[in-house]
Amino acid sequence: MQPLGETVTVGIQGANGSYSEMAVFEFFATGQGQQFKAIPSVINFDHSEQVCEALSNRQIDLAFFPIENSIIGNIDLNVDLLNQYPFTILGEHYLKIEHCLLALPSTNLKDIKTVYSHPAALEQCRDYLVKSNFQVVPSFDTAGSAKIIKPGEAIIASHRTAEIYNLHVVATNIQKVRNNFTRFFLFSHLEHNFLITNENKTSLAFTIGDGPGSLLRCLEKFAQYEINLTKLESRPIPDNPFMYTFFVDLEDSVKSEKMQECLKDLALEAQTIKILGSYPAGQK
Amino acid sequence: MQPLGETVTVGIQGANGSYSEMAVFEFFATGQGQQFKAIPSVINFDHSEQVCEALSNRQIDLAFFPIENSIIGNIDLNVDLLNQYPFTILGEHYLKIEHCLLALPSTNLKDIKTVYSHPAALEQCRDYLVKSNFQVVPSFDTAGSAKIIKPGEAIIASHRTAEIYNLHVVATNIQKVRNNFTRFFLFSHLEHNFLITNENKTSLAFTIGDGPGSLLRCLEKFAQYEINLTKLESRPIPDNPFMYTFFVDLEDSVKSEKMQECLKDLALEAQTIKILGSYPAGQK
Repeated sequence: MQPLGETVTVGIQGANGSYSEMAVFEFFATGQGQQFKAIPSVINFDHSEQVCEALSNRQIDLAFFPIENSIIGNIDLNVDLLNQYPFTILGEHYLKIEHCLLALPSTNLKDIKTVYSHPAALEQCRDYLVKSNFQVVPSFDTAGSAKIIKPGEAIIASHRTAEIYNLHVVATNIQKVRNNFTRFFLFSHLEHNFLITNENKTSLAFTIGDGPGSLLRCLEKFAQYEINLTKLESRPIPDNPFMYTFFVDLEDSVKSEKMQECLKDLALEAQTIKILGSYPAGQK
Repeated sequence: MQPLGETVTVGIQGANGSYSEMAVFEFFATGQGQQFKAIPSVINFDHSEQVCEALSNRQIDLAFFPIENSIIGNIDLNVDLLNQYPFTILGEHYLKIEHCLLALPSTNLKDIKTVYSHPAALEQCRDYLVKSNFQVVPSFDTAGSAKIIKPGEAIIASHRTAEIYNLHVVATNIQKVRNNFTRFFLFSHLEHNFLITNENKTSLAFTIGDGPGSLLRCLEKFAQYEINLTKLESRPIPDNPFMYTFFVDLEDSVKSEKMQECLKDLALEAQTIKILGSYPAGQK
């Protein structure tokens, strides 16, 4: 493995104190990112597209995106972006999500009328919000909402957000399921050639032909080569209404001989194949 | 077919002038809904959950939900709700979506700073919004935003919204792909027993066992009985991080002999099976 050097710039969507920022630090300090022996310097962007543009223009070394949540499913926008750009996944990380209700120190629970947060966080806490009869306002960011909070308002974000912005933790663990994880991907530009070791998982995107049974024949290739499929998702192809790109996660490295043979075989059936990356599996 | 009578109450999420309301009228007047020979009376709700609760309590006869869009994919919340409640799908409808930028008659394009709409509509028009450098604010509703619009602001909604709320159409067809369709489901409570004819499509939800290859063995059942699968989606099971419920659309009626045999066979492999409904396919 080639160490990246002292500091690497890592682009995220969202403000400091966001779950993405927490995940970056956890990944490099205690997760699979330890192999990089690097100190991440987080660069914040308002939108995921801006992170991708910055990586594309080499203004940042790496990017870190939430890709899937165990309650609400895929973060579709980020899945689509990964598929559109010439990027490659280098790592995977699972972050435990514990949503808190945060307010200004002067605000008590009974004073709270309005709650701001990212739609994904609002959805994960929907039962709590409905029961409490709060007015709910979507925003682009969990932690970013901390900057605009007023008396009588609250936001949903992490403990870390409370510390950074001096907010009062009114309630903790308010998501509807205690076991709430978000899965993140670390990725670089394809041409960056970071060397990683211990890849044992591969993510692919493929499209299929028109005829019936084409998807099944593609999936049978993985079974034939005894490559375990841990995930299957579909996303629409916008120019082709109700046609889909399929995303699969496979338990093997793209460098293994059987994966190489499987991909050659898959290419005979699939219309297009894109290798999104091969990386060491994150710990759940 | 048993006609429903003169008027049926149909619950939708969103205000009058929303795409859901347009789709209801189109479905009953010119789509597969003609067989009901009924006049829909639309009942508006703020949230999809409220529509489901009202249907569950028999306060409304039917409900009508957007389920999938050809640009952004599944409307996950509505897919999950359909799977949670004892409802059955009676019909399918495809509505062509043409997003417009709407403002007060006194506002010109150059005065517009802020644009409100449902996150799905904002995402479908992202390229246009970024190019125009508007500040974008998510709201729960396309048409509902019309009620709060001020000078210097705009909303993204339909031509019909402009007519209902006396707004000025500043720009038309602003979504990133011209061919933009949303697929809707009409559904009732399972116990309602509405009789429909010409069902040629069936939607199923199923979960699979733990072992490798279980999904593949389920999909092979459909192939074995020559039942064409037109869609495959997965949704997380919140209590079981990174386990999935699979949703499939099949080109056959649930009443057909081969579908009945196939379902019996599928039950040997799948952990759970839920028939979401069998209905006449909508016209694209």
